[in-house]
Amino acid sequence: MRPVLLMKVFVTRRIPPEGRAALAQAADCEVEQWDSDEPIPVKELARGVAGAHGLLCLLSDRVDKRILDAAARPWPFWACASCEGGPSSAPSSSGMSSPSRSHGSQPVEGSASPCEAVVTVLRKGANLKVISTLSVGVDHLALDEIKKRGIRVGYTPDVLTDATAELAVSLLLTTCRRLPEAIEEVKNGGWTSWKPLWLCGYGLTQSTVGIVGLGRIGQAIARRLKPFGVQRFLYTGRQPRPEEAAEFQAEFVSTPELAAQSDFIVVACSLTPATKGLCNKDFFQKMKETAVFVNISRGDVVNQDDLYQALASGQIAAAGLDVTTPEPLPTNHPLLTLKNCVILPHIGSATHRTRNTMSMLAANNLLAGLRGEPMPSELML
Amino acid sequence: MRPVLLMKVFVTRRIPPEGRAALAQAADCEVEQWDSDEPIPVKELARGVAGAHGLLCLLSDRVDKRILDAAARPWPFWACASCEGGPSSAPSSSGMSSPSRSHGSQPVEGSASPCEAVVTVLRKGANLKVISTLSVGVDHLALDEIKKRGIRVGYTPDVLTDATAELAVSLLLTTCRRLPEAIEEVKNGGWTSWKPLWLCGYGLTQSTVGIVGLGRIGQAIARRLKPFGVQRFLYTGRQPRPEEAAEFQAEFVSTPELAAQSDFIVVACSLTPATKGLCNKDFFQKMKETAVFVNISRGDVVNQDDLYQALASGQIAAAGLDVTTPEPLPTNHPLLTLKNCVILPHIGSATHRTRNTMSMLAANNLLAGLRGEPMPSELML
Repeated sequence: MRPVLLMKVFVTRRIPPEGRAALAQAADCEVEQWDSDEPIPVKELARGVAGAHGLLCLLSDRVDKRILDAAARPWPFWACASCEGGPSSAPSSSGMSSPSRSHGSQPVEGSASPCEAVVTVLRKGANLKVISTLSVGVDHLALDEIKKRGIRVGYTPDVLTDATAELAVSLLLTTCRRLPEAIEEVKNGGWTSWKPLWLCGYGLTQSTVGIVGLGRIGQAIARRLKPFGVQRFLYTGRQPRPEEAAEFQAEFVSTPELAAQSDFIVVACSLTPATKGLCNKDFFQKMKETAVFVNISRGDVVNQDDLYQALASGQIAAAGLDVTTPEPLPTNHPLLTLKNCVILPHIGSATHRTRNTMSMLAANNLLAGLRGEPMPSELML
Repeated sequence: MRPVLLMKVFVTRRIPPEGRAALAQAADCEVEQWDSDEPIPVKELARGVAGAHGLLCLLSDRVDKRILDAAARPWPFWACASCEGGPSSAPSSSGMSSPSRSHGSQPVEGSASPCEAVVTVLRKGANLKVISTLSVGVDHLALDEIKKRGIRVGYTPDVLTDATAELAVSLLLTTCRRLPEAIEEVKNGGWTSWKPLWLCGYGLTQSTVGIVGLGRIGQAIARRLKPFGVQRFLYTGRQPRPEEAAEFQAEFVSTPELAAQSDFIVVACSLTPATKGLCNKDFFQKMKETAVFVNISRGDVVNQDDLYQALASGQIAAAGLDVTTPEPLPTNHPLLTLKNCVILPHIGSATHRTRNTMSMLAANNLLAGLRGEPMPSELML
C-alpha cells in the first residue's frame, strides 16, 4: 500500500461556489469546512484548525496565539478503514461537514486501488504553513505571532473596488432621490395623485461632489458619478494626487472647504488616527442644508451622535451609511428612527461576481502557500 | 383714475417656488392659485377658470369642453374698494388663495396712486388665450376643442431627461444590489455577522445592458451606466439609430434577442400600440434567471400579471418599476408582496431642480402666450 500525503485545509465558513470548487479540485488537499453561514465558535475553530496545514478564514475569525497553538496539536489520523485501523477519531459532525476529499469525486492519477486514495499520512505537530483570509482587512490576525511561526498570509485586496464603488453610487442615489421613503409611500397608500413638490430629492446635475480620500475606490466612485452631470469634483486626503485627479479635474481642498462647498460628500478614505472622527459636529455644521452625506469606508470616521444631530435638526439634508459603529448597529439606534438616514449592513462588496472572485483568490492564495509557490496576493510580514 | 388692464391667470395647484416667483413678478397679471398640494375638484376648476386669460394646469386636471366653456363665463370685476364700488363678488376662500397681485408687493411703474395699481378692468366672455401644462404629456387636454377656440398650448418637454435617467439608474442599482432588503435587515435585526453569501446582488461589471428605446432618456441612461463597467449595450426600437448608438457601441437587435442576451433590461420607450404589453410572458421567459428588469416608461408596456409570475417563480432575478398600471397601484397588489420587486410612485422627474425648471418653463410659456410672444415650448396644434 502506497501512502498518499495529503495536506489538511480547514475552512471556517461556507464560501462562494468558485472558491469551494478550486479547493475541491486540489488533489493534494483534504478539505474540512465549518458548514454554516454563521461564524464558527472559537472552540470549534480551535478543534478544526488542529493539525491543519492551511486555514481559510474570515474577518469574523480571531486568529490569535491560542488558535495558533491549537493548530499545532495533532490531527486525527485517517486511513482506509478496510485496510488498517480506521480513523483514530471521527471529526465532530455538529455543523461540520465531513471532510470532502477531492479523491472521492476525482480519482488521483496513478492510484492503483481506491483505498490508496483515502490514505492520509500526517506529520504530527506544527503544520500550519498558510493562513488565507477572505477579506481585505487583517485586523483579526495576530500578525506578530503568525510571523514568529513563519506562517504566510494571503488576503484579497483590489478585487472589491468595482463592487464597492457601485454600492457607494447606489447608496448616494437611493439617499438623495429618497427611494426608501418612496417605496414606503407606495406600500402604505401615501401615493395618491401626481404632486409637483412630493418626494422631491436633490439630483447630481450641476452639483459639486466632494470625495474624502481619492484612492482606488474614491476614483472609481468619481468615474461613475461624472456622467450624471457633476459640475465640479473636490477631494481631500493626505496629499494631492494630481495624476489621479486629472481624470475628473478634481480640486484638492481642505476638509472644511470640502464640507462647505459640496452638494454631495462621499467618504472613501481608510480609517487612520487622522480620519477617526473626522466627520463630526464641526464638519456637519459647515455643510450645506441641502447636502447629502455618504460613508462607505469605516464607521469610526463618523461621529454618529453628531451625525444624528445634524440630520434630526435639518442641518444637512440626508445621509447614507454602509458602515456604522458598531456593526451590526443595534436595532434601537437613534439613527434608525430618521427618515433621512439610509443604513445598509456593510454590503459594499456583496455581488455574486465579487464574492466569487474573492473566494477564488483566497483559495488560490491558500493552495499556492501550501505548495510553496508565489501567492497571488500575499501580505508581506 | 387710469384703469390698469390686468390679465387673469388661474393656477390649479401649488407649484414649485421658481415658477411661482416668475408669475408673481408679472406686472400685467392677476394670479389666482388653488392653494393645495392635492388636485383641484372639477367644480373649483370650472369656477377658477371663469374669465381667465391664462390657465396653468397639471396632468391631473382634465381640460375638456365643459371647462373651456366655463372659462368663457364672466370673471368677477375687481376695482379699488375705496374708489368705486368694490369687488362685485369675492372669490371663494375655500382652499383658494386670495388673488396675489404683483402690485401688492411691487408698485407698477408709472402708477400715480396706490389705488390705481389694484384696478382691474376685464372684458367679459371668452378671454382664454393660453393653457400651459406643467407636464410633458397632454392627454388631459381636449386638443381639438382647444384648437377650435384658437387657444395656444404650452408644455414642458426636454427638461426631464437628466432627472429621469438618474432615477432609472438609481432604481436599477437599488434593485440589483438589493438595497430595500438590506435596509430592512438592518431594522429587523437580520444583520448579524459578515457572511460571504448574504444579500449578494448582481453588479454591472462586465454585464450586457439592453435598452428598450434609445431615445433621449435611453441615451442618458446608457451614458450613466457605461462607466460601471458594462461590457455591451443592446437596444431595440422602431429603427436603428446608428449615430446615437455609436457613443455606446450599442447594437440594434430584435426584442427577443435583447430579452435573451441582457443581464439588465431598462424600458425607456414611449407607449405606442407597438410597445403596449411588449414585456409579457414570452419576453420574460426569454430572459436570464439572473437578469434584472427595470421600467421607467409607462406601466402599460408591461403585462403585470406576467411579470408577477416571472418574479415569483424565479424566472428572472428582480424588477424595479417607477411606473405601473394603474397609478397609484392599489396597496394590495400582488407585486407588492414580492421581495424582488421594487416599486416607486412615478418619481422620475422628482428633483427640486427639475420641478423648479418645469414650473419656470410653464410660467414662461404662459406669460409669453398671454403677451402674444413666441413661447419657449409651444405645442403646435
